[in-house]
Amino acid sequence: MFEPPLERVIDEFARLPGIGRKTAQRLAFHLLHIEETDATRLGEAIIQLRQQVSSCVRCFNVTAEEQCSICRDLRRDPTVVCVVERAQDIAVIERTGEFNGRYHVLGGAISPIDGIRPEQLRMRELVARIDDEGIKEIIAATNPTVEGDATGLYLARLLKPLGVVVSRLASGLPVGGDLDYADEITLGRALAGRREL
Amino acid sequence: MFEPPLERVIDEFARLPGIGRKTAQRLAFHLLHIEETDATRLGEAIIQLRQQVSSCVRCFNVTAEEQCSICRDLRRDPTVVCVVERAQDIAVIERTGEFNGRYHVLGGAISPIDGIRPEQLRMRELVARIDDEGIKEIIAATNPTVEGDATGLYLARLLKPLGVVVSRLASGLPVGGDLDYADEITLGRALAGRREL
Repeated sequence: MFEPPLERVIDEFARLPGIGRKTAQRLAFHLLHIEETDATRLGEAIIQLRQQVSSCVRCFNVTAEEQCSICRDLRRDPTVVCVVERAQDIAVIERTGEFNGRYHVLGGAISPIDGIRPEQLRMRELVARIDDEGIKEIIAATNPTVEGDATGLYLARLLKPLGVVVSRLASGLPVGGDLDYADEITLGRALAGRREL
Repeated sequence: MFEPPLERVIDEFARLPGIGRKTAQRLAFHLLHIEETDATRLGEAIIQLRQQVSSCVRCFNVTAEEQCSICRDLRRDPTVVCVVERAQDIAVIERTGEFNGRYHVLGGAISPIDGIRPEQLRMRELVARIDDEGIKEIIAATNPTVEGDATGLYLARLLKPLGVVVSRLASGLPVGGDLDYADEITLGRALAGRREL
């Protein structure tokens, strides 16, 4: 329909998650209308992303070096490790400013329905780190879903025999939320996890 | 927050229209998880887009050559020209299969509020084409908005003295629509433009 170079950009944009063909077209035409240097900068940033970024050899966070900036930071406590499903979850936890340990990216959560078994996640690498780094505590910060909960329980069963304390992020009402809008499962968890004042 | 190469991609994605920082992050992490060749292909397609694509010297459509494929097509009627606001509107009209003339991309519509005067649109280039190509009819296919209507009227006043027939796309009820859901202005136009059966 369009000229081949334009069609190619539309096709590639439309391959991205959440971007349909209509949006892909709008983005491609936008790139035609802005300054050429601005358009080229996006293309180059994308190419360089994969040339310059890889996984931290220790925790599998995103990094431009061999180890990520968190693993390299000597002020962080190496004995507490927060286990997350995906590298992007690290940024969310870092933003709280409440955690000063290291991370471990599992690469997903256990999900029999999707055929994801523990062996396909980075469990072995985590176990190897326990001794190497003297890890004393693991916080299972997997998502508050059936799969995330199952993964948390698996971690507890796997690591407690090694003498590691395993905890799970609290489930409950979101701060600033409204009781009226809370679903019954979340509210049930909030009740079960109530704290004395 | 993220490693510089990742931050750059997020920044560049977030500059695109309709893409916020959260979506930009999701897209960037997606590019980290797919095959490197697939990610690189998007970057290269974007860079090549601006290297290979420019405006048709005649109608300002998008083209990889000097003239666009429609202007080069000898089977198309050069005496009828459909005037559109933006190059992407051409694809929409082409898809109807109802038009066999050429196009002219104005580059926008007259809008005093946004400070867009006729001189900033490609009006002069259109007038030059009237004689050069023996244009007999102009279809003002600008958007059915206040600005698009004003641009249509301007075209009529500009080109009728040159002996050109100027028409405007019909406004009315969308096919497959429901009277109940039509706004009163569209319904008013549909009444005014009623056709005898």
